[in-house]
Amino acid sequence: MATVTNPYKKLVKRARELAWLATSAETLNWDLETGMPPKALDFRAEQLTYLGGQKHRLFTASKVGDWIAACEQENLETGSPEAANVREWRRLYDRATKLPLSLVEKLERTRAHARAAWKEARQRSEFKRFKPYLEKLVELNRRRADHWGFVDSPYDALLTEYEPGARTAEVRSLFADLGPAIGTILPGAIERSAGAPQGMLTGNYPIPAQQALNREIAEAIGFDFGAGRIDTTTHPFCTTLGPADCRLTTRYNEQDFTQSLYGILHEAGHGLYEQGLPAEHFGTPLGTAVSLGVHESQSRLWENHIGRDPSFWEHWHPVACRHFPDLKRFTPGQVSAAVNRVSPSFIRVEADQVTYDLHIILRFEAEVRLLEGQLAVKDVPAFWNEEFEKMMGLKVTKDSDGCLQDIHWSLGDMGYFPTYTLGNLNAAQLMARARQDHPSLQSEIERGEYGTLLSWLRDKIHKQGQRLLPQDLIQQATGEKTRSSYHLNYLRQKFTGK
Amino acid sequence: MATVTNPYKKLVKRARELAWLATSAETLNWDLETGMPPKALDFRAEQLTYLGGQKHRLFTASKVGDWIAACEQENLETGSPEAANVREWRRLYDRATKLPLSLVEKLERTRAHARAAWKEARQRSEFKRFKPYLEKLVELNRRRADHWGFVDSPYDALLTEYEPGARTAEVRSLFADLGPAIGTILPGAIERSAGAPQGMLTGNYPIPAQQALNREIAEAIGFDFGAGRIDTTTHPFCTTLGPADCRLTTRYNEQDFTQSLYGILHEAGHGLYEQGLPAEHFGTPLGTAVSLGVHESQSRLWENHIGRDPSFWEHWHPVACRHFPDLKRFTPGQVSAAVNRVSPSFIRVEADQVTYDLHIILRFEAEVRLLEGQLAVKDVPAFWNEEFEKMMGLKVTKDSDGCLQDIHWSLGDMGYFPTYTLGNLNAAQLMARARQDHPSLQSEIERGEYGTLLSWLRDKIHKQGQRLLPQDLIQQATGEKTRSSYHLNYLRQKFTGK
Repeated sequence: MATVTNPYKKLVKRARELAWLATSAETLNWDLETGMPPKALDFRAEQLTYLGGQKHRLFTASKVGDWIAACEQENLETGSPEAANVREWRRLYDRATKLPLSLVEKLERTRAHARAAWKEARQRSEFKRFKPYLEKLVELNRRRADHWGFVDSPYDALLTEYEPGARTAEVRSLFADLGPAIGTILPGAIERSAGAPQGMLTGNYPIPAQQALNREIAEAIGFDFGAGRIDTTTHPFCTTLGPADCRLTTRYNEQDFTQSLYGILHEAGHGLYEQGLPAEHFGTPLGTAVSLGVHESQSRLWENHIGRDPSFWEHWHPVACRHFPDLKRFTPGQVSAAVNRVSPSFIRVEADQVTYDLHIILRFEAEVRLLEGQLAVKDVPAFWNEEFEKMMGLKVTKDSDGCLQDIHWSLGDMGYFPTYTLGNLNAAQLMARARQDHPSLQSEIERGEYGTLLSWLRDKIHKQGQRLLPQDLIQQATGEKTRSSYHLNYLRQKFTGK
Repeated sequence: MATVTNPYKKLVKRARELAWLATSAETLNWDLETGMPPKALDFRAEQLTYLGGQKHRLFTASKVGDWIAACEQENLETGSPEAANVREWRRLYDRATKLPLSLVEKLERTRAHARAAWKEARQRSEFKRFKPYLEKLVELNRRRADHWGFVDSPYDALLTEYEPGARTAEVRSLFADLGPAIGTILPGAIERSAGAPQGMLTGNYPIPAQQALNREIAEAIGFDFGAGRIDTTTHPFCTTLGPADCRLTTRYNEQDFTQSLYGILHEAGHGLYEQGLPAEHFGTPLGTAVSLGVHESQSRLWENHIGRDPSFWEHWHPVACRHFPDLKRFTPGQVSAAVNRVSPSFIRVEADQVTYDLHIILRFEAEVRLLEGQLAVKDVPAFWNEEFEKMMGLKVTKDSDGCLQDIHWSLGDMGYFPTYTLGNLNAAQLMARARQDHPSLQSEIERGEYGTLLSWLRDKIHKQGQRLLPQDLIQQATGEKTRSSYHLNYLRQKFTGK
């Protein structure tokens, strides 16, 4: 260990420095989203470019590669914290250094233009305006995949950015079961929603009252406001500015309190993961969330398995009525039915729990085919609309309701979408295991007590950081790798009663 | 010019990089004050230390000294923008590099402990608890002065940190006229305040209404909310996060709207200066405010010469009554009398316009004597209390109302206080000149039109950056260096009608 100690210590020190830079940049980004005056944008972009450049320079320095190589020469104990850090540093270093600068710069430039083109294309619902940019972005992503390297599919090289170690073939196989099975659940779920018309809760829910209720519930599930806060943005998010500084955001609709509340339950789910990561390892892989698919499992778990559990409103209805006199018109059962209404719709981010994954499966399939060359960009709208109608029974009449709806491609991000559904599958699998480990869990949840569940997640997921690869972590936590059956059983039971 | 171009360009480039770092740190500081979760403090301190260290390293690099020296070898035209930048870079570089690291570190450590000791000493009103730290800080400041160098007084070396080029002897001579003259104005001013008892405006002024009025008035005087915003903090401040990003803060008292309003008028005065600096020079001396004494002239001008002008409430009373029904009990004249009430008191930050400078003159005299060795730290309370009673006619019965009231010494700052009074003198002198240049100014002000005044300040002060030294700038703007007579005439006329 004597020879490894020094390079390892240097890597830890460098990681700390990178964390200071990264969280400074993240604070600037948070401020940009929450309250920065509009005219400040140009200079803010300069600051962020500078900090990003400094970060890249510090991490990709050749001596960092030497330190990693030196650590790899040592016999670090398999499964040890040090080995995990070195494994992830290697992965990140290779990904950061394998791309030629010209490709990185070309992608950056294309993204900037693509985003503007996508915005206009979506607004006018004219795919042709986005098409040339999407063609470039697919091509650039293929080139990235070539530089990063892959065995089976170029999509593997992209997917692993968000879900380390995941393989396209495995995800495809998971999704192949999932889609048709959801199709069998859907008709019954729609039928059971007949008594809960859209917008049935519409009323007068003042924003300060929403903020007070959201805070009360976020505190109840364990979010630490001594180490976090909630602000307002158009698009809700969760960001981490330090080991004890997690910022959530949501948006408010005075007629519909569920938008901000479920936004907060979702983001606070992410926030609980971030607040539960081991602070002493902040900035190193051991202090970092393991993957997006596991991160999303935490947000989905609190948003859906807790917040949309039929028991949730039995407990919270009287509390919510203190904040919203207008809610007294409804019984807890009616509120629960309203927030669990199932109805196929065009927009993913507004989708219910049953149809949500159908959007993802379709987007994933399109991405893989684009990357593997089996689908041409020009054919994306036709592919999308045809498959969407098959799955959802709805005819897409404008691309802004179809393949143009999401921002991700315009940002150059491909490989990200499947992590949303992996999150749903992981959430159901983790909940099933937690219930098995703690038979009294449901009765605690019904009393609004979430401590046992949070402790279990802290132990099994949060405290682990990146000690294991995502699938090994899920295996360790639940006894199995990610399967679709837990999520399907949960949906079937909850939405059809079978 | 050919040979100078390159080092000069390098200095400009380095200044830009330093600006990105400095404003990133300033954003972290702003966030720390306005909304950071409390547990995030330790990590935030690490980030700030890191960014501060990077900034120091980049600016004090020996090649920066070489570039400055190379520029000095060139015949830069006297009075040219380039010559001004080089002059200030030299001053800053020497100040940053002349101190041994051991002294800097010792001062940092002492400050940290001194601040805690001062807090406790003030709370218990026990000077002896602060005494050993103040002794150390005076000694360390003497050593700083020795390293920086001075001709007449070690205090010169400290003063010039905040007021480039200012000399202790000149300030003392200004203040020597000012104190006794204020003494002749004070009795009449107190007499005229008899009809405006303390707290006469006390009422119900909801915070959202205060925020709306403050914003309306800040916009009216020209503060650009597209390039700035207002937040809430315990201690109001103005900070600049970029060339189009100026953040003001204030605090609210629901019973007394004048606290937040005059806080905003003061900070927006600083903000107008910052927003008026030439953006193309941001980060270089040409894009930086010239001194604290000129900065304070801008805040005092808008707070007092505008906001406490007898005409101010004639115009704004109806507007304020729209926001505050509770204000309809008073006439504009009564509101004006209340915000212009003169009454000697112990606490500087609560002092009226007439007695304010007496606090400063006393603090300045104590500082100079401490630095020059004519006053021992142990004798500060006795000195303070005796002089205070002479000037103000009030007997100090506890040091928390006397020499312990202000935080500055505990931060190691000496030489800062006189800039408050320089600000008052400059404000009156600038207003007198602006009125001379624009005879219609008073009638515009009475109509709530501030565009002519702001344009005049933009031209004479804001756009100038550090092109000239502060006293040369005041000379250029008003035809004279800073004098006390304008301020005295203004006070006498306003508060005694003579």
